[in-house]
Amino acid sequence: MEKLILVSNDDSIEAKGVHELVRTLRTLGDVVCVCPVQPQSGMSMALTVNRPLTVKRLPDYHGAQMYRVDGTPVDCIKIAVDNLLPRRPDIVVTGINHGSNAAINVVYSGTMGGAFEGCAYGIPSVGFSLTSHSEDADFKACLPVVEKIVKEVMEHGLPAGICLNVNMPAHVDEYKEIRVVRGCRGRWNDRYDEYRDPAGRPFYWLAGNFINEEPDKENTDEWCLAHGIVSVVPVKLDPTYERPEEFSWLCEK
Amino acid sequence: MEKLILVSNDDSIEAKGVHELVRTLRTLGDVVCVCPVQPQSGMSMALTVNRPLTVKRLPDYHGAQMYRVDGTPVDCIKIAVDNLLPRRPDIVVTGINHGSNAAINVVYSGTMGGAFEGCAYGIPSVGFSLTSHSEDADFKACLPVVEKIVKEVMEHGLPAGICLNVNMPAHVDEYKEIRVVRGCRGRWNDRYDEYRDPAGRPFYWLAGNFINEEPDKENTDEWCLAHGIVSVVPVKLDPTYERPEEFSWLCEK
Repeated sequence: MEKLILVSNDDSIEAKGVHELVRTLRTLGDVVCVCPVQPQSGMSMALTVNRPLTVKRLPDYHGAQMYRVDGTPVDCIKIAVDNLLPRRPDIVVTGINHGSNAAINVVYSGTMGGAFEGCAYGIPSVGFSLTSHSEDADFKACLPVVEKIVKEVMEHGLPAGICLNVNMPAHVDEYKEIRVVRGCRGRWNDRYDEYRDPAGRPFYWLAGNFINEEPDKENTDEWCLAHGIVSVVPVKLDPTYERPEEFSWLCEK
Repeated sequence: MEKLILVSNDDSIEAKGVHELVRTLRTLGDVVCVCPVQPQSGMSMALTVNRPLTVKRLPDYHGAQMYRVDGTPVDCIKIAVDNLLPRRPDIVVTGINHGSNAAINVVYSGTMGGAFEGCAYGIPSVGFSLTSHSEDADFKACLPVVEKIVKEVMEHGLPAGICLNVNMPAHVDEYKEIRVVRGCRGRWNDRYDEYRDPAGRPFYWLAGNFINEEPDKENTDEWCLAHGIVSVVPVKLDPTYERPEEFSWLCEK
């Protein structure tokens, strides 16, 4: 039987990145693509519990089944696996995101939210991102990387509880290298820009910039992206700290 | 100067759990409480990037400043630290959640989303949950536990990048023990219940139950909760897997 590939994203069913992804993966198996109606950037592993979901099947795209769901990336993966797919998928692939999900962004990313959810089902899962927010970004160089990594993961599998966060630098004609590294330490230096509505009431929009706290470290994703290299960061679903005994001071009488 | 305590939750500014939390923490320092307008259960670390936020100050509650924000728990923490607070808080405390956030729930929880966000700012952060979804749940037994843990954490601090996921079993008059343990392995056995709208179109609501995959393990949060014990799970913000070199097969030509 053909491999079954579940595709999703967080930029919505209308995004260029997911269409490029679907066309590339069609050569590797049967593709079912289940994406949010609305952009879901920054939705992390949010799931919808307080209202129901609706699902609509759209016309096939290059032989792939296409669905849209009025929910989050996690909702898309859940309803696809539980209700829409004919069998358990062999792999979950999310993206290609319009924008970086390197470093701390991995925890906020809806693209990675979808990949983590695939991982929660025990399915090998990979999220792909390109470091360009442009709606019309050029994904050409990404496609051979996507094909190679998805093929390898379908062949080797992934250890339980671990999925892959793949980031690709924009404006590169051909990637010379793929490196498996760790997420760069750093933080967002947030600020909220203040505006006034027509009645004079304030409202606030999140702005800010990423502070790279280890710019010279070669074995980090941010370093790779700054040097034209594709970064692959294996990430764990379960956040449990391995040595709870270090916190025994909390239990003393 | 008094300690500054930032309080938030995911059940909204109207929830009983956060009011009980505020009243308890008032004895330990200055409290500012910044909560979502709408319930945000299951919102994980979602943050709002595609629209602006509004903020409203409400009347003080037992001497604490109260604000509501039309966003997620992460938004509440960000805008509090960046714009609303007079100084950097000494601790972020979220909850008390109406419902368990033990085991895999930690990754979907908005309560823990807020705590993880405090952790992203480098502030010691703790999320508290009671295993009862009742709007009118009885939090009486929780309050001495909250007080003890918040006091200890303000005194000792927490290691960078680690926050605490505290769960308390419902229907216990007095907790005999607090244990620091790890998150129980398990998964949600989801299903989507199908309904029909008045026009006959289907819609779907997430249901299902948690499958505990290690019910007999004493050093897990689920075991504690089943035995009347408060569980404390130290959890890490950064999901990076520690041994990326195990994935070098991905880079081979």
